[in-house]
Amino acid sequence: MKTLSPPPRLLMGPGPINCYPRVLSAMSTQLVGQYDPVMTGYMNEVMALYRQVFMTQNEQTFLIDGTSRAGIEAVLVSAIEPGDKVLVPIFGRFGHLLAEIAERCDAEVHTIEVPWGEVFLPEQIEQAIINVQPKLLAVVQGDTSTTMLQPLEHLGEICLRHDVLFYSDATASIGGNSFETDKWQLDAVSVGLQKCLGGPSGSAPVTLSERYVELVGKRRHVEAGIRSSHHSDGQSSRIRSNYFDLPMIMDYWGSERLNHHTEAASMLYCARECAINLLEEGIDSTIFRHKVAGDAMLAGVKALNLEPFGDLAHKMHNVVGVYIPDTVDGEIIRHQMLHDFNIEIGTSFGPLQGKIWRIGTMGYNARQDAVFQTLQSLESVLRRNGHKLPLGEAIDAAYDVYAKVNPLQNEDK
Amino acid sequence: MKTLSPPPRLLMGPGPINCYPRVLSAMSTQLVGQYDPVMTGYMNEVMALYRQVFMTQNEQTFLIDGTSRAGIEAVLVSAIEPGDKVLVPIFGRFGHLLAEIAERCDAEVHTIEVPWGEVFLPEQIEQAIINVQPKLLAVVQGDTSTTMLQPLEHLGEICLRHDVLFYSDATASIGGNSFETDKWQLDAVSVGLQKCLGGPSGSAPVTLSERYVELVGKRRHVEAGIRSSHHSDGQSSRIRSNYFDLPMIMDYWGSERLNHHTEAASMLYCARECAINLLEEGIDSTIFRHKVAGDAMLAGVKALNLEPFGDLAHKMHNVVGVYIPDTVDGEIIRHQMLHDFNIEIGTSFGPLQGKIWRIGTMGYNARQDAVFQTLQSLESVLRRNGHKLPLGEAIDAAYDVYAKVNPLQNEDK
Repeated sequence: MKTLSPPPRLLMGPGPINCYPRVLSAMSTQLVGQYDPVMTGYMNEVMALYRQVFMTQNEQTFLIDGTSRAGIEAVLVSAIEPGDKVLVPIFGRFGHLLAEIAERCDAEVHTIEVPWGEVFLPEQIEQAIINVQPKLLAVVQGDTSTTMLQPLEHLGEICLRHDVLFYSDATASIGGNSFETDKWQLDAVSVGLQKCLGGPSGSAPVTLSERYVELVGKRRHVEAGIRSSHHSDGQSSRIRSNYFDLPMIMDYWGSERLNHHTEAASMLYCARECAINLLEEGIDSTIFRHKVAGDAMLAGVKALNLEPFGDLAHKMHNVVGVYIPDTVDGEIIRHQMLHDFNIEIGTSFGPLQGKIWRIGTMGYNARQDAVFQTLQSLESVLRRNGHKLPLGEAIDAAYDVYAKVNPLQNEDK
Repeated sequence: MKTLSPPPRLLMGPGPINCYPRVLSAMSTQLVGQYDPVMTGYMNEVMALYRQVFMTQNEQTFLIDGTSRAGIEAVLVSAIEPGDKVLVPIFGRFGHLLAEIAERCDAEVHTIEVPWGEVFLPEQIEQAIINVQPKLLAVVQGDTSTTMLQPLEHLGEICLRHDVLFYSDATASIGGNSFETDKWQLDAVSVGLQKCLGGPSGSAPVTLSERYVELVGKRRHVEAGIRSSHHSDGQSSRIRSNYFDLPMIMDYWGSERLNHHTEAASMLYCARECAINLLEEGIDSTIFRHKVAGDAMLAGVKALNLEPFGDLAHKMHNVVGVYIPDTVDGEIIRHQMLHDFNIEIGTSFGPLQGKIWRIGTMGYNARQDAVFQTLQSLESVLRRNGHKLPLGEAIDAAYDVYAKVNPLQNEDK
């Protein structure tokens, strides 16, 4: 079996994307023991770092050892008891996922939907809350399947007024778009590393409000194999999953350090580095970098005589949908981009399958050179496949976007 | 926040342990896209590699993205429908864990127990099977909490005769002790990387027999967000977890490549390297290396005037329990080992808390120099804490064990 030596792909799809080199290096750091004060020190650092990333004071801010959907499932299965009502506004594939996971918890799941490419007004969600009276509202912030970003800033106040727990999955958006846990009054948030945070999939940071923690704390349970006489279980029903039992995981991350899983140390090193990388650049600066790269890519694809998808006023900064012209085969274009130029752009699924490409500009790849290389490669491939376009204008359009932000762009020079 | 620079600990506890350097390097490899033929090629390689590691022809051999208990939960929650009978022979902490996870699936869980430090005879397990008539037998192979290795080689035939599914968690033992999935007629096996395979926690290889796959296939279900008209769901009850839904995960690893989670690529690189490392050394050679290191450590601790714990005829090769002498404080010894010598040895929990240390010799650390450094450091620390011991004899005893296997030991020279 050969040594790992993958081709140097430039990953400009909806994620995963190329990792920041420092994040990759962090993962090759040798381990220390699970309860070594050095390791528990790193765990505490990770909690502090992700409080900053999530913009929260929540004590309970830590990692779930799994991909981003592991974070989703942990939040939902720990909170939902069979029969609980859950409201899920669906504006893309990941709304369906939240609904499906809640269904498997035997929640009574209610959904509202808008067409793919749109988002909800707060009033639509409030009306549904009034109709359904759910225990929990679960909504995705950024859904890569449609490139849309659901505004969340008014939903916390609505949820609080109606005594509803407010949960959002911000995997695709965090680090590239504003996200303010406390200001927006969220009770639970889960994310992944593989989008704007610039790491690989495999660790899911979460943050939990006191209200959420109090609720799931009633379902606290200690494993038989490590139980001592001073441990007592909560009154509410036992959480259906051991792996995703958040009270147990909190006892592991907390001062009691009760053994649960063995923390995935290399992924913790990685998550730590992703957060430090973001905070060193600054959250606002990083979001601005994503906005500019996204604007440049959008301007560029328009100049390639391509039509962007969806409600652009609610597009995520970090990904754009682009209609595949009738005159070309979308998969042939992707194939040539990948094999001839080592650049990956994304396909789509569900109602958008075969209709749009998704082109990302996120994390390490929210860079001017990555935008430029992608646009000129796309120009070459489209031109050679018979798509009519004005030569050179995509690069010019993207240059123009960067020129407007020159002062900030030049800070690094 | 400082750059990661942990102290160079020698991890001689019950795991996690130091990773092989090549495994750490593999994790710093840059990513390719999720459906890139290079990535799906790596996924297929991982399946082929772990078939060799597990010694099986099972097509369904792949990774669960999480720690070893994620693999346990995936196997159990996918197979168990509420009310199903599950039999768990418990000989340590991880038997309790299997029972607890099965309980959370609403199985009717039956347990049999032996005192910590012993294992079961096949006849004891067969008698319980006759009494309980379970759907599934779930048993740990090696339980680090007691250092014991449960013999499995006669259980497959018993299970087949009584029409019982046979599942084992071999996280702590695989790679350091014999494990033969097909010869022993197992239906499901889950492991982790962080013991004898010499990787970090965070990926859980599993293998599933055709019988197991057929059973869980009846619970197949396709997510709404990616469903097409040719997908149809199975007749049996839906699996309670999305993240651990093995039929869905099989559809992702299989030729259909139906999207489920985003594969944790860096952990996949890592799992791939762990397997290659094992297979290049050879499974038999690696197990022998673990046996010799374990024998040397056992001989050494005896020469330190320490008493080993449990039924030594059924000890795992890769970890030994050692009674803490009445004359010393076990935690002070561990503290001095860690802080003065950078060597970690393990504590214990449950009924053995405060009674034994657990000293591992596994993976990268199943090495002569690691055994010697641990023994002479332990000698120094014990002596300085007033434990009576004959100076130098531990090293001599360990040398004697290595001397007996000199021909093989010298192969590398």
